Amino acid sequence: MSSSSIGQRFVFTSFGESHGRCIGAVVDGCPAGLELEEKDIQKMLDLRKPGQSIIATQRKEEDKVEILSGVFRGYTTGAPIAMIIWNTDQRSHDYDNLTLKPRPGHSDYPAYIKYKGLNDFRGSGRFSGRLTATFVMAGAIARKLLEKTLKIETYSYTCQVANVKMKDQATTKMKNFIYKNEVRCPDQKIAEKMRATILAARRNGDSVGGVIESITTNIPVGLGEPIFGSLESDLSKALFSIPAVKGIEFGSGFHGSTIHGSENNDEYIMKNDKVVTKTNNSGGILGGLSTGMPLVLRVAFKPASSIAKKQKTIDLRTKKPTSLIVQGRHDPCVVPRAPPIVDSLVSVVLADHAIRAGLISPVIR
Amino acid sequence: MSSSSIGQRFVFTSFGESHGRCIGAVVDGCPAGLELEEKDIQKMLDLRKPGQSIIATQRKEEDKVEILSGVFRGYTTGAPIAMIIWNTDQRSHDYDNLTLKPRPGHSDYPAYIKYKGLNDFRGSGRFSGRLTATFVMAGAIARKLLEKTLKIETYSYTCQVANVKMKDQATTKMKNFIYKNEVRCPDQKIAEKMRATILAARRNGDSVGGVIESITTNIPVGLGEPIFGSLESDLSKALFSIPAVKGIEFGSGFHGSTIHGSENNDEYIMKNDKVVTKTNNSGGILGGLSTGMPLVLRVAFKPASSIAKKQKTIDLRTKKPTSLIVQGRHDPCVVPRAPPIVDSLVSVVLADHAIRAGLISPVIR
Amino acid sequence: MSSSSIGQRFVFTSFGESHGRCIGAVVDGCPAGLELEEKDIQKMLDLRKPGQSIIATQRKEEDKVEILSGVFRGYTTGAPIAMIIWNTDQRSHDYDNLTLKPRPGHSDYPAYIKYKGLNDFRGSGRFSGRLTATFVMAGAIARKLLEKTLKIETYSYTCQVANVKMKDQATTKMKNFIYKNEVRCPDQKIAEKMRATILAARRNGDSVGGVIESITTNIPVGLGEPIFGSLESDLSKALFSIPAVKGIEFGSGFHGSTIHGSENNDEYIMKNDKVVTKTNNSGGILGGLSTGMPLVLRVAFKPASSIAKKQKTIDLRTKKPTSLIVQGRHDPCVVPRAPPIVDSLVSVVLADHAIRAGLISPVIR
Amino acid sequence: MSSSSIGQRFVFTSFGESHGRCIGAVVDGCPAGLELEEKDIQKMLDLRKPGQSIIATQRKEEDKVEILSGVFRGYTTGAPIAMIIWNTDQRSHDYDNLTLKPRPGHSDYPAYIKYKGLNDFRGSGRFSGRLTATFVMAGAIARKLLEKTLKIETYSYTCQVANVKMKDQATTKMKNFIYKNEVRCPDQKIAEKMRATILAARRNGDSVGGVIESITTNIPVGLGEPIFGSLESDLSKALFSIPAVKGIEFGSGFHGSTIHGSENNDEYIMKNDKVVTKTNNSGGILGGLSTGMPLVLRVAFKPASSIAKKQKTIDLRTKKPTSLIVQGRHDPCVVPRAPPIVDSLVSVVLADHAIRAGLISPVIR
Repeated sequence: MSSSSIGQRFVFTSFGESHGRCIGAVVDGCPAGLELEEKDIQKMLDLRKPGQSIIATQRKEEDKVEILSGVFRGYTTGAPIAMIIWNTDQRSHDYDNLTLKPRPGHSDYPAYIKYKGLNDFRGSGRFSGRLTATFVMAGAIARKLLEKTLKIETYSYTCQVANVKMKDQATTKMKNFIYKNEVRCPDQKIAEKMRATILAARRNGDSVGGVIESITTNIPVGLGEPIFGSLESDLSKALFSIPAVKGIEFGSGFHGSTIHGSENNDEYIMKNDKVVTKTNNSGGILGGLSTGMPLVLRVAFKPASSIAKKQKTIDLRTKKPTSLIVQGRHDPCVVPRAPPIVDSLVSVVLADHAIRAGLISPVIR
Repeated sequence: MSSSSIGQRFVFTSFGESHGRCIGAVVDGCPAGLELEEKDIQKMLDLRKPGQSIIATQRKEEDKVEILSGVFRGYTTGAPIAMIIWNTDQRSHDYDNLTLKPRPGHSDYPAYIKYKGLNDFRGSGRFSGRLTATFVMAGAIARKLLEKTLKIETYSYTCQVANVKMKDQATTKMKNFIYKNEVRCPDQKIAEKMRATILAARRNGDSVGGVIESITTNIPVGLGEPIFGSLESDLSKALFSIPAVKGIEFGSGFHGSTIHGSENNDEYIMKNDKVVTKTNNSGGILGGLSTGMPLVLRVAFKPASSIAKKQKTIDLRTKKPTSLIVQGRHDPCVVPRAPPIVDSLVSVVLADHAIRAGLISPVIR
Repeated sequence: MSSSSIGQRFVFTSFGESHGRCIGAVVDGCPAGLELEEKDIQKMLDLRKPGQSIIATQRKEEDKVEILSGVFRGYTTGAPIAMIIWNTDQRSHDYDNLTLKPRPGHSDYPAYIKYKGLNDFRGSGRFSGRLTATFVMAGAIARKLLEKTLKIETYSYTCQVANVKMKDQATTKMKNFIYKNEVRCPDQKIAEKMRATILAARRNGDSVGGVIESITTNIPVGLGEPIFGSLESDLSKALFSIPAVKGIEFGSGFHGSTIHGSENNDEYIMKNDKVVTKTNNSGGILGGLSTGMPLVLRVAFKPASSIAKKQKTIDLRTKKPTSLIVQGRHDPCVVPRAPPIVDSLVSVVLADHAIRAGLISPVIR
Repeated sequence: MSSSSIGQRFVFTSFGESHGRCIGAVVDGCPAGLELEEKDIQKMLDLRKPGQSIIATQRKEEDKVEILSGVFRGYTTGAPIAMIIWNTDQRSHDYDNLTLKPRPGHSDYPAYIKYKGLNDFRGSGRFSGRLTATFVMAGAIARKLLEKTLKIETYSYTCQVANVKMKDQATTKMKNFIYKNEVRCPDQKIAEKMRATILAARRNGDSVGGVIESITTNIPVGLGEPIFGSLESDLSKALFSIPAVKGIEFGSGFHGSTIHGSENNDEYIMKNDKVVTKTNNSGGILGGLSTGMPLVLRVAFKPASSIAKKQKTIDLRTKKPTSLIVQGRHDPCVVPRAPPIVDSLVSVVLADHAIRAGLISPVIR
């Protein structure tokens, strides 16, 4: 299988480079009969755009998606859905001098060695965060499919920026407030502090990282497979493909490993005639299978690697020490752009598993 | 692809159940020409056995591996290597009453719903920690292959039990001390505290979790693929298949998301005529590719779900609340058994990527 | 994916060597709830055994299958079903001198070069026809699954031996006569001529080939996928894995390419309130999808490579011409053993596609 | 894996529909460093175009390929190579009345049932022969890669149209004459007869089929894998994805099953210090592995389904018998367009296997 593809039945393939002609996605295995038009995808892509505020890069991609195949008379046909975004704002000269002076924290050095200098390094090429737009193209379809067929809903939000963090998980109600601010945090007070933290980093020519929390409700019990098809396995594989992600945890996660079994185990109770658990330390997954409780996961993003400070590096031709200041347009914090990306990959993985489990049929109309 | 398989070129398939006739592994894609005998695998399996001390379960599996195919005259042949361990100590009556009273923290409930009661639930069946022995069978081969061909070395150890944690990463020298104690912590003083913590939990009929840290040296630069073939993606997919794992981080991980880019970026320097980084906050991976620095990852284990305390649950037939005390043989902490399992899965993933990258040929003699 | 595996949802992995300890199969993805015991598989394996007559080899493998996992209380569990046959009658000395004098028509030479002499060459090792017993293990399960859930039935028979051929396709009634003779031809008169042909070849120390025809009824309309998931693609991939197969055709096949479109097209008519075609030149497949008409395919087997006549070859060490007479136990014609093998692989492919199409659910009870 | 994809390391994904916006291909896993520009692909696409003569359809697609990604400064980068052809000449009204009156010999009926009428049926949509242009896009790259790195050369030609057939296999010299005539037969006299046969069919509103023979030289010994990775398995899987293909044979194929082992076995001899076989009845494959002799295969095409004669069918709405005359632009024989398609798929499969075997490295410059 191509390392640009993910999924077994709902298969998503990503192509394109940051500063090439376009970026694109092919989704194969989407059931026939899903109502789909470009604006379903565009809407979610737009959430990934940085706000007008100072927080984000000033790169002005329109990121207008076009559907090239797989949709006929307004419905998916069961054939591969190819989608594309033409790259319009390519300022590659910003990056030209970087090839032989690898930027700390970027893929430059290992990519240079791996491809012997042949890779398209402009704007990090294939390794660019820009490719996450292709995740959103596929994710918008998966998400709509899950909502239509199983009423599964995913919402992700910034729960931490540097050391500023939300105390509790967002409630279902709070999901409507996520996009009310530019950091995508549903708690407006914390959001303001996060914003200040990002601005401070920016002023210092520095960057900060953070954490995205993602919650998915209404997953039927028993999605996932034992061993290598566990939901945790497949979700983490997908999510670690986002550049800058360095950690993932489910439910009580790393904290759970500090407490006792009697505290961490989720006891079963009846609620509205349904078997549920009193707590949800498992994050909705036991034995790799969904429990019917909300899926809860957190994704740690490192601080953006591109900073305006001078950094030490090596000139790969001369093997001599040198230094660089990363030019170009950079976000001091990539976390606020991540919620729709996390939503997307979670949806892609769940759609695949729902089809594998026979819960969504090949033709849904 | 089967959800019991992992890998593209070095493909490992796991089969068997905790209390069935056997557990087994098939490894396909191992290059021909690797010297291999049963004791290469047995040695690593033995490291997974709990010590004689009070720490672990008293289940006394011999866990004696047999190679069934793929080895001829002492060398691998390029054909699938099937391996088996016969289950000898099956006390399934211990578990018989559990089917309809799902144990909190276990796969019982979602598995029951998914398989409509048809799954082999004895000893958790396919979801049992016992299946990790099959990971070690495959891992022992992968590890030997990596050592022989690329001198890659992996060592994993318990760096945290509940709130007792090592301050620093273990040095290369310390790896010889990992198996000097039953908790598999290379710092003997910390190890003693961890042991005390586990014993205390045990006395209370409770359990504790912890964290495994894993370090791999000598990985060539450029292993891994962009997007869905990133090392982080494939390593996490493999590692989240270990029961009880709820979090994974690479390098500075979750902590990294609290600091600045200028602190977290690893600057390049020359050392012994090699390009290296001054720090290793990336954990040896940038852009999904190996940097040549040590691979550093941490795996969070929840406290063992099987505890001797009374817990609330639901009788699935009557839908009435009930309670249970989990009978049988249980570890108060599974973490000390995990280092060879983590070593194994890391090796399986790296072997696969090394073959994909053309760094190990199909015939190595 | 391992080249020892086939299928996407019903995944079959084959392991073992002709003269190693065992041969085996792992089937993953079989739905839970299929009643299954060893004799279901044994029955079909026994059909693959050569008759007591002079036709076949005198190798006396018992070929007794054991189920190792995936079945609990008489039903499949959804977990991988591992099966094994221990090799009991290994006369490897017969083959020892062959390594460096490659037998014409066998895999010896390319295998020797590919594996640099490391492959288990005894009895052709991994390339032996003996491995087709693993196809039957998997096939027996697939076949039972298809019968139980969709009433799909497959029957295959010898329709040609050398130049002796049946004039017409066997009718459904005739399928009961297939195993009434040792050549597995449902037309008893033709069968007798085939037998004479085989005996004549045997007397001359020579061998003959032939053709298997396979018919499958009751396939629902629309199984298969466009492009690379066409039924023809997946069936041929499976069937060409049988040693000695050198040609495959569907419906009118090679003959169809000599006639006109107006003759070859199958017109639609109504019959018993069902849309059917008047003729079935398509062999039940159009556009890679099943049409609801019987699947008809033919598989061409070359004459067995092992013959008692002296043949020219090269000594690979000295690069000098030499000659050899193949010793050991050989069938003068392998075709009569092939019907259950063809049945098996057809069933494996159809089971995979039926699951992919959502026609068989993950739990069937 | 998507059923629109093929290959393990050199992975080709096809998308698009006959009368949609475009057709396209994504090739992932092509090594970095291959010199590649659009005209390399265009050249091969042009060979697929029908001649100006009466033989072929008058559909005038320009079929101009554009490379969208994966090539930088004239060389492949190792990233996915996306390619596209915009559909410009869409006369879909020709097909509009066909949906509910399935054309005999076409995918209409099973596709309608499978997709419940949701598939894009215009011009057969996803089932159209037009999609074979995407095979050529991928194939042109694979072919260039194989020539550059291993000097492997493939040539395919029409060896039979209806009952007009070449007596012998084309010699290496003859390959230069393949494209000298519109039927793509290297024997000019036979070509003229084939042309007459096609014209005669056309005059009668009918169609004819034929056979393509394909020869590949310079394949290293040992390409392919045992069991399901046999060259025959992977080649046939690829080739049966061409619409209208109903049979495939290698070497002596179906004829081989009528002769004796002593005639069919290829004896080994030395020639120019190389081990070769005197004859090549195996078609260059033994045990699924390449022998170093030329790969020889034949692909049977049924007569084109679209004919101008009135045919019986069923109105799917009323379930009443009706009849139709297929309107639109149709080739009376598709075989002359097939040689570059067969070349392409053979190249795609061999490139994948050569990479899997470690014979082509991930970076070739």
